[in-house]
Amino acid sequence: MQSRRACSFLPFPLQDQVMVPTVEWKHGAVRLLDQSRLPEIVEFIDCRDYQTVAEAIRSLKVRGAPAIGVTAAMGVALGAESIQTTDSASFTQAVLKICDELAATRPTAVNLFWALERMKRKLDSLQGQAVSVIKTALLSESQAILEEDIALCKTMGRHGATLIQDGQTILTHCNAGSLATAGYGTALGVIRAAWEGGKKITVIADETRPVLQGARLTAWELMQDQIPVTLITDNMAGSLMKQGKIHLCVVGADRIAANGDVANKIGTYSVAVLAKAHKIPFYVAAPYSTIDLKTKTGDDIPIEQRNPSEVTSIHGSHPVAPKDVAVYNPAFDVTPAELITGIITERGVFKPCEIASQFQSK
Amino acid sequence: MQSRRACSFLPFPLQDQVMVPTVEWKHGAVRLLDQSRLPEIVEFIDCRDYQTVAEAIRSLKVRGAPAIGVTAAMGVALGAESIQTTDSASFTQAVLKICDELAATRPTAVNLFWALERMKRKLDSLQGQAVSVIKTALLSESQAILEEDIALCKTMGRHGATLIQDGQTILTHCNAGSLATAGYGTALGVIRAAWEGGKKITVIADETRPVLQGARLTAWELMQDQIPVTLITDNMAGSLMKQGKIHLCVVGADRIAANGDVANKIGTYSVAVLAKAHKIPFYVAAPYSTIDLKTKTGDDIPIEQRNPSEVTSIHGSHPVAPKDVAVYNPAFDVTPAELITGIITERGVFKPCEIASQFQSK
Repeated sequence: MQSRRACSFLPFPLQDQVMVPTVEWKHGAVRLLDQSRLPEIVEFIDCRDYQTVAEAIRSLKVRGAPAIGVTAAMGVALGAESIQTTDSASFTQAVLKICDELAATRPTAVNLFWALERMKRKLDSLQGQAVSVIKTALLSESQAILEEDIALCKTMGRHGATLIQDGQTILTHCNAGSLATAGYGTALGVIRAAWEGGKKITVIADETRPVLQGARLTAWELMQDQIPVTLITDNMAGSLMKQGKIHLCVVGADRIAANGDVANKIGTYSVAVLAKAHKIPFYVAAPYSTIDLKTKTGDDIPIEQRNPSEVTSIHGSHPVAPKDVAVYNPAFDVTPAELITGIITERGVFKPCEIASQFQSK
Repeated sequence: MQSRRACSFLPFPLQDQVMVPTVEWKHGAVRLLDQSRLPEIVEFIDCRDYQTVAEAIRSLKVRGAPAIGVTAAMGVALGAESIQTTDSASFTQAVLKICDELAATRPTAVNLFWALERMKRKLDSLQGQAVSVIKTALLSESQAILEEDIALCKTMGRHGATLIQDGQTILTHCNAGSLATAGYGTALGVIRAAWEGGKKITVIADETRPVLQGARLTAWELMQDQIPVTLITDNMAGSLMKQGKIHLCVVGADRIAANGDVANKIGTYSVAVLAKAHKIPFYVAAPYSTIDLKTKTGDDIPIEQRNPSEVTSIHGSHPVAPKDVAVYNPAFDVTPAELITGIITERGVFKPCEIASQFQSK
């Protein structure tokens, strides 16, 4: 069950609005900015049950590993709120079922599973308390996850900004921005922090087919903040690198394995190979919730295959290829640790091989 | 002035039609398949004056280096036909003016200039003849260019097919097919010849943003011939190479410099870098008319910048990015000779460094 906020059909660009919340708890609902309609339509969805939250994750209305984690946590709180029993055991079973349903929405971004585990730990720690108390505590926990996410991004931004020099041009792929997190962004958080620190930088945004998160979201976000951005198609990055027009690459991550391999939006691997060939530093920005020490290497990360229509059409409606053509549509690829200059985290910037030791006690 | 053939509004897939002519002389007009509308609409345009031919080249209704050359030659013949004078000197001046206008349509593909030079040489050789004789001879010359182009593609195909082994998967970028030539294709000619020779091959087609020639044209062409093809977005090629799923790359060319550097559709350079990093052979297929020994290196090839709307929207109408975002939109990039395993020509397969000596007397 969802309702759409007509009042928020704002034409682009947004007027007098600096920060659009990606996800928030509002009037007893999980309010999401519908990212599948940006930048043409700025519309919020009020999810009034956890199934609507799950569907919003599945259909990319909310996307970006940290944002998915925050949204799932809020989905648990929302689902818990609606459970009618006062029997603690029944309530716990019902919450765990909600967690399972939310976990089944997308397979690659580990932040989803991390957030659900954290909610389950909170639930477990409250055994013996009244159901009403647990409901309130779960909502608080999801709110804490949201607030922490913004704080982590800002800290990451400060660490990462030291890597960027005045006058540089930075390539980013997909959207690892405010829209991919509860706010501020991971890769775009680094760019934002450099910009806020007075560095005159320019961003090159890969459009990021098939879902065009770079064209629709990254370009939009940066224009909101008046950070200079130039949009390119994904296949132009190599040519720009060859011409010396890109000084540094920074991207987000959906899962970082113990050996420092990184799963991120499809195309990230190509950018990393191209960066290596042109001796351009390639950084990944991600909070601790993206690091999955249980996954030993990138080979162990499940890669989601999405609907062919994302490739054969634009926004699922405008066809750009023959009907019934065979399609390969992995949502992510894996960049091996050896192609990554450094991983920017809230604890500092580390070599991929240092991640396991740095985050053993996360 | 143009007319569109309603009878040719055929739904995809075409029924009982194996080969769609890219360009032909028909009933005193230059008939072009409007490639900007494929694969949704199969429509032919009858150009009844050379200005319409020029506009069709400029607006990508016809594209692909060899096809542009053939079309321009036919445009000269069409323009010559309409010149009213019987005075030989005035006629020659008018034809040269037509050549200049056609030459100004697109800057990178050298086949355009090569074809116009050939038409001018024919004109020059006929000085002293009656205008009516010259008109007929120019039309014959353009027809000869068209027929030679098909023959060259078939010869290239035979040479190139020897490089492909049974069971291989071949990546191609953009459309270097029947639609990019008078027929049969350069890179796709090689693939066609291998297929016709009984080799069970599979093609991976890069969609080739921004104009999507891979999705719209290559996938369509190969499906017509029932050659197995899988469509990917440009940013997926690297990931497939890493997984060992691509055995060979073959692309076309818009201009080959004397040192073997190759200008081709934007994104070709990235494919070549990725192929090198994965030790995958990377071939270019092109006829002698694409080789430009007057251009010493790739740095000397002019690269066309096209309208930003190609990037910010799909087919110029469906927006996919914020309004007024800055865009970089080069139509081509240059792949240096050292990344190219071999250049497949009608005279055989050569190393890039051998091109100058092989084609000195072209």
